[in-house]
Amino acid sequence: MKYSDFSVEQLEQRLGVLQDNYARIKDAGLNLDITRGKPSAEQLDLSNGIDGILEGFFLLQDGTDVRNYGGILGIPEARQLGADILSLQPSEVLVGGNSSLSLMYNMIAHMIGAWEEESRQSNSKVKFLCLVPGFDRHFTICEHFDIEMINVGFLTDGPDLDTIEVMLERDPMIKGIWCVPKYSNPTGHTYNTAAVKRFAQLGKIAGPNFRIMWDDAYTVHHLTDTPDELHNLMQEARAAGTQDSVVMFASTSKVTFAGAGIAFLGTSMDNLKAFEKFLSAQVIGFDKVNQLRHVRFLKDTSNLAAHMEKHRHLLGPKFDLVQTKLEANLGKRGIAKWTKPRGGYFVSLDTMPGIANEVVRLAADAGVKLTPAGATYPYGLDSDNKNIRIAPTFASLDKLGQALDVFVVCLELAAINKLLST
Amino acid sequence: MKYSDFSVEQLEQRLGVLQDNYARIKDAGLNLDITRGKPSAEQLDLSNGIDGILEGFFLLQDGTDVRNYGGILGIPEARQLGADILSLQPSEVLVGGNSSLSLMYNMIAHMIGAWEEESRQSNSKVKFLCLVPGFDRHFTICEHFDIEMINVGFLTDGPDLDTIEVMLERDPMIKGIWCVPKYSNPTGHTYNTAAVKRFAQLGKIAGPNFRIMWDDAYTVHHLTDTPDELHNLMQEARAAGTQDSVVMFASTSKVTFAGAGIAFLGTSMDNLKAFEKFLSAQVIGFDKVNQLRHVRFLKDTSNLAAHMEKHRHLLGPKFDLVQTKLEANLGKRGIAKWTKPRGGYFVSLDTMPGIANEVVRLAADAGVKLTPAGATYPYGLDSDNKNIRIAPTFASLDKLGQALDVFVVCLELAAINKLLST
Repeated sequence: MKYSDFSVEQLEQRLGVLQDNYARIKDAGLNLDITRGKPSAEQLDLSNGIDGILEGFFLLQDGTDVRNYGGILGIPEARQLGADILSLQPSEVLVGGNSSLSLMYNMIAHMIGAWEEESRQSNSKVKFLCLVPGFDRHFTICEHFDIEMINVGFLTDGPDLDTIEVMLERDPMIKGIWCVPKYSNPTGHTYNTAAVKRFAQLGKIAGPNFRIMWDDAYTVHHLTDTPDELHNLMQEARAAGTQDSVVMFASTSKVTFAGAGIAFLGTSMDNLKAFEKFLSAQVIGFDKVNQLRHVRFLKDTSNLAAHMEKHRHLLGPKFDLVQTKLEANLGKRGIAKWTKPRGGYFVSLDTMPGIANEVVRLAADAGVKLTPAGATYPYGLDSDNKNIRIAPTFASLDKLGQALDVFVVCLELAAINKLLST
Repeated sequence: MKYSDFSVEQLEQRLGVLQDNYARIKDAGLNLDITRGKPSAEQLDLSNGIDGILEGFFLLQDGTDVRNYGGILGIPEARQLGADILSLQPSEVLVGGNSSLSLMYNMIAHMIGAWEEESRQSNSKVKFLCLVPGFDRHFTICEHFDIEMINVGFLTDGPDLDTIEVMLERDPMIKGIWCVPKYSNPTGHTYNTAAVKRFAQLGKIAGPNFRIMWDDAYTVHHLTDTPDELHNLMQEARAAGTQDSVVMFASTSKVTFAGAGIAFLGTSMDNLKAFEKFLSAQVIGFDKVNQLRHVRFLKDTSNLAAHMEKHRHLLGPKFDLVQTKLEANLGKRGIAKWTKPRGGYFVSLDTMPGIANEVVRLAADAGVKLTPAGATYPYGLDSDNKNIRIAPTFASLDKLGQALDVFVVCLELAAINKLLST
């Protein structure tokens, strides 16, 4: 039965039980953290073989010594791997250091001059569309560069492209859009083929300096036997002549080592040439030794897929546990909805409006750290105060279970308090 | 006898000999390169043990798993190593990725907003002092951010501090100065204690947003038994209350792997806090696995010194060969002066005025690549057209000898042509 159908008396009775539970939990002095999408130690162990894999061989097929300076675009073997992952040509791929975020940041830094020039001429701020809920670190980059962010929501099957198209037609100072097109952070959406095709047309509406920041962070991070397929945006864009509007990103942060992987940027060859020139003022080349380690370790996409299966075996039970715990405790209460992701790193949960903050506060007081409510929205502002991102990957199964037990009590408590106060 | 004391007849006779030599050299179809300060393969081999050194142990003393995300300032063990190298407190040190250049670039990017605000208010451009000849990549960063560069020369024993002080007093929009204080690129200067003490006072003249970019790239790169000592700028600056004006840099690029080392930035704790915040928009953390590899491999400053001795044994004969060849062929001709560095990666040679360009062109035509004349000056402009940077480290002793034989012929040729034409 839904809590909204409870009588006041029933709610008060339930509240009493929950308050007792909550007091007991607080006494237990827990210290749990399900805030960030970090791989667990067991997942990291899967890649321990990467250190030392070179066995003293540092030369590439073309004779390049990866230990020495140079080569901003990355070693050919790693560009090929990135191309295979992103379904691009190697000539469209740059391989960076350990951070795709840094490549995104630099792409914005590279474009901001042209955008600000347009801004001065039109006397209108540079703006970005942000699909919400989304990835906080994307939004932080916009804040850093003083780019105004405009929220766009998801429909059941993906981004609200009608709204996106209308907005781009209305405001030529919208210069980009942040996307996580596959197993989206945090909603789990994979954009369907029709949506991808419409994305390829956006550059025609928005003009030459518009950039789709296509952060394909979870492209090989499946949680099912039947992986989602993401249609090839660049292929569509090439056909539409909008390839300059496409900038793709991926990394091995959740494939090998989260802090010591390699990152990929894919875009048109013209864009890449200009971006390489931009980067040349700040770096002579990224870490080619680590690029070679990754190529030797991951080999090719089929070996990569086998490697990701091992991750899935570790992650599957955790995501299952989230579903079990949420369903058992909240399934019939009508106070929350959540996603059942087919890949990626998160479960996105919407509480009844107006209580996400309170749930996070209650959990924190009981020793369970959750991602701050609002973090999945630009400027940290979730106007409905309802979205909570659950990151089940890092904690052990045991601790995850404990954290979820606390979480559901906090959620029920906040919901009943809200229902009783209105 | 100096060429300037030759008669026209003697010069013409010598020119004939040189032209024959040059023609023979061209026929040999050489392909040699002494342009950049890259370590040789033998030097890189000294550090091959770094790959695989972790042997599956990825945990720090404080329990941090270096494989996972986080920690922009770097691992404590690496901050300690950087502090020992730069004579700082670990709390003043950030350990970055494989590029100190990238840290320098980001420090300028971090400051540029405040500088540009002052620029708007004073209606005067942001400016930097550049000691010349100097490192071209420093100057490129200034060009990238549209910072006007002003040349300052060296006196016999180091930077011309009288001029620096006067300039800072006159123009409050001079916001920084590039320095390579030890075994300077390319001149080989090590700033003496009196100079370092005066540097520590510059922040008092120039105001709170002034930054000394103290690129201590060659601090452990000695070529003699009696290493130069660089006085501790930060200690002086702390005493003077100017510690915010000091930003130091170092890296292991020419200690371990040139493309896969770790970089250090040292500054006041207040600066470091602000810089960390600035970086947090673009990176979650640098490669801590590689930081740990370096700590395990280099251990401490005494082990580092022993490691650098091995580099010296490889480099010493190359630097000796440069002196021998230059002295034998040019020693008495009065057409060039050059440095005899006690450390670092370069020999700086000044031709008679007006011919450096021509020497580089002649060498290129004969298959020997030299650093472009002017590269050691802001905007590539050496108004005397005389400085040539020789980088003897990368080539084998044999090829270096061949390249120098060509170089001296080209220099003599250009000089005699010049003398005959004036």
